[in-house]
Amino acid sequence: MKVILAINAGSSSVKISVYLADKRTAPRQIAESQVSGLTAPPAKLKYSRGGETVIKEQNVDNAVNSQDDAFALLLKTLEDDAQLKEISSKSDVAIACHRIVHGGDYKESQLITPDTYHHLEVLSDLAPLHNGAALGIVDSCIKQLPGAINVACFDSQFHSTIPPHISTYPIDPTIAKKNRLRKYGFHGISYAFISRSVADYLGKSLDELNIIALHLGSGASVCAIKGGKSWDTSMGLTPLAGLPGATRSGSVDPSLVFHYASDVGKLSPAATEKLHISKAEEILNKQSGWKSLTGTTNFGIIASSDEPQHRLAFDLFVDRICGFLGSYYVSLRGQVDAIVFAGGIGEKSARLRSAVVDQASCLGFAIDDAKNNAEGDATVWDVGSKDSKQRVLVCQTDEQFEMARDCTEMDALWQ
Amino acid sequence: MKVILAINAGSSSVKISVYLADKRTAPRQIAESQVSGLTAPPAKLKYSRGGETVIKEQNVDNAVNSQDDAFALLLKTLEDDAQLKEISSKSDVAIACHRIVHGGDYKESQLITPDTYHHLEVLSDLAPLHNGAALGIVDSCIKQLPGAINVACFDSQFHSTIPPHISTYPIDPTIAKKNRLRKYGFHGISYAFISRSVADYLGKSLDELNIIALHLGSGASVCAIKGGKSWDTSMGLTPLAGLPGATRSGSVDPSLVFHYASDVGKLSPAATEKLHISKAEEILNKQSGWKSLTGTTNFGIIASSDEPQHRLAFDLFVDRICGFLGSYYVSLRGQVDAIVFAGGIGEKSARLRSAVVDQASCLGFAIDDAKNNAEGDATVWDVGSKDSKQRVLVCQTDEQFEMARDCTEMDALWQ
Repeated sequence: MKVILAINAGSSSVKISVYLADKRTAPRQIAESQVSGLTAPPAKLKYSRGGETVIKEQNVDNAVNSQDDAFALLLKTLEDDAQLKEISSKSDVAIACHRIVHGGDYKESQLITPDTYHHLEVLSDLAPLHNGAALGIVDSCIKQLPGAINVACFDSQFHSTIPPHISTYPIDPTIAKKNRLRKYGFHGISYAFISRSVADYLGKSLDELNIIALHLGSGASVCAIKGGKSWDTSMGLTPLAGLPGATRSGSVDPSLVFHYASDVGKLSPAATEKLHISKAEEILNKQSGWKSLTGTTNFGIIASSDEPQHRLAFDLFVDRICGFLGSYYVSLRGQVDAIVFAGGIGEKSARLRSAVVDQASCLGFAIDDAKNNAEGDATVWDVGSKDSKQRVLVCQTDEQFEMARDCTEMDALWQ
Repeated sequence: MKVILAINAGSSSVKISVYLADKRTAPRQIAESQVSGLTAPPAKLKYSRGGETVIKEQNVDNAVNSQDDAFALLLKTLEDDAQLKEISSKSDVAIACHRIVHGGDYKESQLITPDTYHHLEVLSDLAPLHNGAALGIVDSCIKQLPGAINVACFDSQFHSTIPPHISTYPIDPTIAKKNRLRKYGFHGISYAFISRSVADYLGKSLDELNIIALHLGSGASVCAIKGGKSWDTSMGLTPLAGLPGATRSGSVDPSLVFHYASDVGKLSPAATEKLHISKAEEILNKQSGWKSLTGTTNFGIIASSDEPQHRLAFDLFVDRICGFLGSYYVSLRGQVDAIVFAGGIGEKSARLRSAVVDQASCLGFAIDDAKNNAEGDATVWDVGSKDSKQRVLVCQTDEQFEMARDCTEMDALWQ
């Protein structure tokens, strides 16, 4: 048995889940800890062990204001907990796996060697807003856990099966090849978890599973899954394309940003020497989305409000989601076992699920109001009506578990 | 009866159709003439009268190399034709109507007064690549036909009925309002023609007509028409969004162009003092699309070739079209009387129609191969199978006729 840390670093939070695992067996979570609010200090610490809350929500010293600091604090929390017998010192951690948003052409998770690390740095230019945080934590891990093997799990790798006529952009192929411009897709760690969980739930083998999965959170995307593999997804070269999110515009006319502000091709103040972020990318990723329409990033507030701008944002989101539902239904030629809601909004917003399924009723989907409004506590539960031609499911996705599980299947880690 | 010139100016061609018309009656075409190849001299002149070819294809003096020159030549051709009795001098032209791509917030065609002309110039900043040619011709008309009333017919006006939750972009509403950033949609003159023609064909009243119309030419778009009115369309703030075209990328990740080349926010060499065109807009509008993938703008060649890059472009186009079909089928809640193919490719490419309808068969559409492969000569004809749940139609769209017809309904022109 080995101790695996699964690390998920966002722009304002760092989350660690701790697993005990063995080769090709399901990992067992033994602890979980999170620092959030790094960009809105004081940051807050949560910690649970064996499903029990140990630290509910604790304000953290103001000196903790970087991902590096947060990671050090999380490690110390684990080390200092005498009841977490599996980690008495840092050297007990055998494997640290990291969620990395953009993996370029990588089709599977990678051991982080000096070579792959360098390649990840190069890839950051494709996703400067997204890969930066994770790479910082990889650095921390190399320094603070010299005995651990680091593994990169990419949000894009699940989508390496998207066929060329779908992943290709109709642009100059020479430049596309040189600059690696194609649809990559993201949220893939989540979609891998969802696919296996839903196949289990439906009692189907994974390679016979056709679903439309919706990962709806502050970043939101849709994925058409055919035979258990990604066939199409709404995000593109970067996570910007497709659905709007909390602060992201999603797909807009590609010429829009040039009419939004001047000099949008120039570097944003958020750019660094290493990371080139244009003003345009900053505007469309950070200053748009439903926050720009309503003032809040909290979709729960939007969904429960009748204020006109909130209604507009809600209806707009439903319209865009249903657009992808229809599109992927056709792309899967109507062979769809289920639509599956996941992510914070997908799990929690009964009103959004109801609006989406109602609008897509012409495809044979129907919701059961009682089931939809009940709290679900399983990994997958059904909210569809008995009259629904296809199932309507909700899945509590778990990216950290999926990363740890992935590690149990990497032979190089278990020799 | 009045003589109406309907003028359609593209970047490399100018086309005039001549009609005799009276208030609220269908205009009758009496002649048609075109200069094409302005950007690939020598330009060529065609002319027909009463359906008979008078000039089949004549090389034109190299001095004719602007839209102004072309328009003067077309007028002279009409004037000099002794058998075209309706036009013996320029003063016989009562109305000149112009296809203008971007009409901003205009919901209907406008008499061109100094005020509206100024407003059209301002709008050109939203669509510098598209409105320029037409405005040049309006200038010519004012000079060369001082007795005629000029009318602007906008490609965007048909789409003024798109509801806010569909036309709004999830971006800062203050900037969106100030800079007039929303979905406008284009090809609307064509969609107006298609809607009326298909309603006639199906024997339905226009306000009960629900169709998905596909205008597929070197510029391509899709429109969801609900109760005879535009409900959604694939183009956006500009004609760039949505489907790819001959040289247009269509929708791509909005951050793509910043990874395509540097300085994309700078002015393109094609920009003028009046018209601000960024390098990015030039790349995505003029250097992309199926020309960039295959080397040809001729979709007929692409559709009939088995060369891998041609197959890729064909499959990619079918995939993107079917995406909108599925999306709009759901947006219309499955209440779809017909899908309607139009535009050069929509009318001529039986192979494309077949591939699209085949992929959308899960929605109940089916094609009849014999009907699909036969030449159609009506305004609307049926290529659907008897087993098709909804009709599959082809429409020979006629933007010039639609503009002339629109003029017959403008009271101000018939007092």
